[in-house]
Amino acid sequence: MSLLVVGTVAFDKIETPFGKTGRILGGAGTYASLAAGILAKNVRLLSVVGEDFPMEYLALFKNGGIGTEGVKVVQGQKSFFWEGRYHSNMNIRDTLTTDLNVLADFNPVLPESYRKSKYLLLGNLTPVIQRRVIEQMKERPALICMDTMNFWMDTAWDDLLEVLRMVNVLAINDEEARQLSGEYSMIAAARKILSMGPQYLIIKRGEYGALLFHRDEVFHAAAMLLENVVDPTGAGDTFAGGFMGYVAANDNTSHETLKKALVAGSVLASFTVEAFGTDALLRVTKDNLNLRLDLYGRMTGMRL
Amino acid sequence: MSLLVVGTVAFDKIETPFGKTGRILGGAGTYASLAAGILAKNVRLLSVVGEDFPMEYLALFKNGGIGTEGVKVVQGQKSFFWEGRYHSNMNIRDTLTTDLNVLADFNPVLPESYRKSKYLLLGNLTPVIQRRVIEQMKERPALICMDTMNFWMDTAWDDLLEVLRMVNVLAINDEEARQLSGEYSMIAAARKILSMGPQYLIIKRGEYGALLFHRDEVFHAAAMLLENVVDPTGAGDTFAGGFMGYVAANDNTSHETLKKALVAGSVLASFTVEAFGTDALLRVTKDNLNLRLDLYGRMTGMRL
Repeated sequence: MSLLVVGTVAFDKIETPFGKTGRILGGAGTYASLAAGILAKNVRLLSVVGEDFPMEYLALFKNGGIGTEGVKVVQGQKSFFWEGRYHSNMNIRDTLTTDLNVLADFNPVLPESYRKSKYLLLGNLTPVIQRRVIEQMKERPALICMDTMNFWMDTAWDDLLEVLRMVNVLAINDEEARQLSGEYSMIAAARKILSMGPQYLIIKRGEYGALLFHRDEVFHAAAMLLENVVDPTGAGDTFAGGFMGYVAANDNTSHETLKKALVAGSVLASFTVEAFGTDALLRVTKDNLNLRLDLYGRMTGMRL
Repeated sequence: MSLLVVGTVAFDKIETPFGKTGRILGGAGTYASLAAGILAKNVRLLSVVGEDFPMEYLALFKNGGIGTEGVKVVQGQKSFFWEGRYHSNMNIRDTLTTDLNVLADFNPVLPESYRKSKYLLLGNLTPVIQRRVIEQMKERPALICMDTMNFWMDTAWDDLLEVLRMVNVLAINDEEARQLSGEYSMIAAARKILSMGPQYLIIKRGEYGALLFHRDEVFHAAAMLLENVVDPTGAGDTFAGGFMGYVAANDNTSHETLKKALVAGSVLASFTVEAFGTDALLRVTKDNLNLRLDLYGRMTGMRL
């Protein structure tokens, strides 16, 4: 079924212990929609770019079956740009540059064809924009998943609480969960956050996998153990896109399906980190995905 | 079947963000044998203590069904003493005091009744002592598991390599695996270590669980997610004891059994960290163990 992905499409410049890139394709919406498109049909992307955004990048989405009618190109402006450097422990990174550019005035208007999408993934944007997207949907999506970050907890707390009450799934990392809840223990944090609106909470733990909280249950999906991690950029967004792509492909929002979606997201994210930017994700095929799902099953006992 | 556990029995003094203890029962052999004794019969402990060691502590082992014939009490000497303080992030701790005392001259002689133990767990001791224990066995145990630490890599490299060739399973943490192999990636490190002797490598990752490497396969067992972690001391030793206790109880050394043993070790370790010292481990019953195994199954899909 149809899935609308809302998120940044951007230029990234990345340095890791394994090398550095020039300006390459990046952004949460990019990784999430490409990942979702591997699993689901009718994935649509809502975003904004500047006139500097190459047509060949837009073609990558179209080749992946991703609808781009809602990717607005603003003349006279530049695309969002992020530059970062990872430490030798790649769990730590410094942001060197953040140029919002065209993103500063982003006020999304959904094309008519997007307004009945059955599933909705809201990337990390201002809570007000996340809310406006939900309000433009003709029908309430069957499942809405959102990301957010500490910055919005510091600067837009009330707006964030409002949009939290409108979504089904919140997907954040452990530090964000601690700040949002004021609790250190992940179980206590989850209990608090699940009382704020969402029925499901996903905690992304990077190389240690992900947790799915629902009522008083927690489900753990390990991350694939990898020999060569080159660039972690986009892993969390690939995970979220894979998660929602799996839900949309199965058109099912049961707890059991969401657990499997967690596995699908984890396995797709394992490709992203093996090369810079979107390189590895763009090379995923049915064959190497199935091979990795099989490896994952042997590693964890969990099979899709 | 019978399991011989060799390791320290000691006094610990512990401070964590949740409180501090006086001198309490501690030591790798203590945690490992108590954990193994919950799952297996015929668990025997080989260790050494000073004349200051209370009879009531020895009684704890006997009440847990642990053989203590091989726990030597040396008159005129004191027991091994360790004092440590954990940071607010309890993955980090400082050692404040290490008084080897009676352990300095420990040269284990196995009682006759220990020499035919079918399974053997060698706690973290000097590699020479580990080797001498193996050499005193009448028959080669069906499975030998050993622990070690960076200190022996720095000070007793050749001895360590020798004993590594004599065991089936090495259980260490990720930093130790990196130093032993000279490889950063866990997959590369495992490949190297498995070429040094052991058929199995266990990587203990604390709150993130444990990995079991065998040939070109890796199996992951998550750690239980806990609301209240009070004192991590002994978690790794409880894990190792639970692992070998499960193997001995099932009298089976297949890869599949070892995977399940990893789960058993993880679940038992989750008790230890919920109270200071051995308090929580000593309160484990069949009922609360089964309850937690069921929770674990729901969290990971893995059931014993």
